[in-house]
Amino acid sequence: MTQTVFDLQGYLRERQARVEAALDLFVPLQYPEPLYEAMRYSLLGGGKRLRPILCLATCEMSGGSVELAMPTACAIEMVHTMSLIHDDLPAMDNDEYRRGRLTNHKQFSEARAILAGDALLAYAFQLIAERTIGVAAERVVDVMGRLGRAASATGLVGGQVVDLDSEGQKISLPTLEYIHAHKTGALLEVSVVSGAVLAGATPETVQRLTRYSRCIGLAFQIVDDILDITATREELGKTAGKDVRAQKATYPSLLGREQSQQKAELLITEAIEELSLFGKRALPLIALAQFITCRRN
Amino acid sequence: MTQTVFDLQGYLRERQARVEAALDLFVPLQYPEPLYEAMRYSLLGGGKRLRPILCLATCEMSGGSVELAMPTACAIEMVHTMSLIHDDLPAMDNDEYRRGRLTNHKQFSEARAILAGDALLAYAFQLIAERTIGVAAERVVDVMGRLGRAASATGLVGGQVVDLDSEGQKISLPTLEYIHAHKTGALLEVSVVSGAVLAGATPETVQRLTRYSRCIGLAFQIVDDILDITATREELGKTAGKDVRAQKATYPSLLGREQSQQKAELLITEAIEELSLFGKRALPLIALAQFITCRRN
Repeated sequence: MTQTVFDLQGYLRERQARVEAALDLFVPLQYPEPLYEAMRYSLLGGGKRLRPILCLATCEMSGGSVELAMPTACAIEMVHTMSLIHDDLPAMDNDEYRRGRLTNHKQFSEARAILAGDALLAYAFQLIAERTIGVAAERVVDVMGRLGRAASATGLVGGQVVDLDSEGQKISLPTLEYIHAHKTGALLEVSVVSGAVLAGATPETVQRLTRYSRCIGLAFQIVDDILDITATREELGKTAGKDVRAQKATYPSLLGREQSQQKAELLITEAIEELSLFGKRALPLIALAQFITCRRN
Repeated sequence: MTQTVFDLQGYLRERQARVEAALDLFVPLQYPEPLYEAMRYSLLGGGKRLRPILCLATCEMSGGSVELAMPTACAIEMVHTMSLIHDDLPAMDNDEYRRGRLTNHKQFSEARAILAGDALLAYAFQLIAERTIGVAAERVVDVMGRLGRAASATGLVGGQVVDLDSEGQKISLPTLEYIHAHKTGALLEVSVVSGAVLAGATPETVQRLTRYSRCIGLAFQIVDDILDITATREELGKTAGKDVRAQKATYPSLLGREQSQQKAELLITEAIEELSLFGKRALPLIALAQFITCRRN
C-alpha cells in the first residue's frame, strides 16, 4: 500500500467506536427492559454509522467539536434505525435478515418492533433537546426542525410510501429520484447539514454542504441498487436480489449497470468539488464521499 | 339549567373548531396523497381535542396567547393520534373501530397505518420547531424535550409495552399505576405543562400544573376503565368491554366500581386545589377537570 493522505479506515474505526459508546450510554437497558432490549438490539447491532460520522465531520469542519454534535449524530442514527425496523415489518418489506442477524420483529415480535421504532423516533428529539450542550438554542431548534422534516412525510416516510406503491409498476426516472431523494437522501442531508448548523456555519457553507449531501445521497442509492444485483447475502448482511424479485425500479434496471456506475462516480466528483474552499479540513468528507462508491455492503 | 359561571360547552366547541382548523392547515392534502390521506383520516376524524385544549388553556392562564401555543397543541394531538393508530394495529390491540369509524389500517392498510403514524410523530417535532412564533428558543427546546420524553420509552411507548405484557396476567396496583402514568398520563402532563412553559410561567406554576395534570390524568384513566364496562360501543365510538375480554387489570377490577368512581372524584378535587392561586383565570382548567369525571365517552 502506498501512503495515503488520509487514513479513512482508521478514522472510521475511531468514529464508529465513539458513536457506539455514545449510543450505548444514551440508551441504557432499564425498565421496561423488553422495550429497551428491542431498541438496543437494532441500534447497537452493527451498521456503518455513516450518518452520525458525517454529522460529526461537518461539525468539526465548521469549527465545532465532536461533543457538541454527538447527541444530534446519535439522534439521526436512531431515526435511521427506526426506519429500518419499520421497513422490515411483514406489512412492509417483510424481511427476515438485516446486518446478518434476524430483523427486530423476527427476534422479538411485531408489536415490540413497532414500539421500539416509535420509541427511538421520539427519543431522537428528546436527546437533541436535553443533551446538546454549548449550542445556542436557536441552532438546536433549527436542527430539530430539519430532522423532523427529514423523518416525516416530507422526508423518509414520504419516500417509503411512494416506494411501496411503485412495486411491480413501471416507474419514471423522476419518480425513482423522488423515492431516493426522500427515502435515503433526506436523512443523509440532515446528517451533513446539522453538524454544520450546530457549529454555526455560514449560510454559504450550509448551501455547499446541502449540494454535497445530495450528490453523495444519490450516489449512495445508486451503489445500493447495484449491490443488490451483484452482492451476495453474506456480503450485504441482508436479503440480496430482492429488488429484482419485487420488480422494483432501480438505476441498473432503468439506465443499465455500466451507466449507473458512471453516474455514481460523476456525482462523487461533483460532491468533492463543493468542498474545495475548505482545504485540508475537508479531507474526512472527501474520503467519506469516495468510500460510498467503492463500498461492498 | 341554572346559570353557570363558565360555559364549558361553548368553550369546548370554540376551541375544538380552532384546533381542527389549525390541524387542517398544518397537514394539507399533498403529494404523496395516499400518505397524507391516511394522516388526515385519523387526525381530522373527530376526538375531544382535550390535549390541545389543555395546552392552549394553560398558555392563556400563564399570560400567553392561543397563537403562541397552537403549533405545540397540534403537535401533541399528532403524537396522540399516532399512538392510537399504532395501538389499533393487528399486532397490538387489533381494533377495527375507533371514534365510530374504521381504524386506520382497516380503512387503508397496515403499511399505510404504520407510516402515517411515523409521519405524524416526526412532523409533531418539525411543527413545533418551524411554526412556533414569538417564543424564546430556550422555551421551545424545553417543550420539545418534554414532548420527546412523554412520547418515547419514558412515556407512552413504555406504558404501552407494559400494558401489552400484562394482558391476561394478575398485576399489582403499582404496575397498573405505572401503565396509566405512562400510557396516558405522560402526554396529558406535557399538554398541560407545555402551554405554561411556552408562556414563560414560573417554576412554581409549572410544578402546580404538573400536579394538576397528574391528578386529572389518573382520573381520566379511571373513568375510561369505568366507561369500558358501563358504556356501549355507540357511546364510546370504539369496541366496548374489551378490557374484560382481554382480562386487563383495571381500576374497577382491582378496587370495585364504586371505589374507583370515588377515587376519580377525589383526584379532581385535588387537581382543582392546585389552581386556587390563579383565581378566575383558572376557570377553564377547573371546568376541564370536572368534565373528565362526568364524560360519557
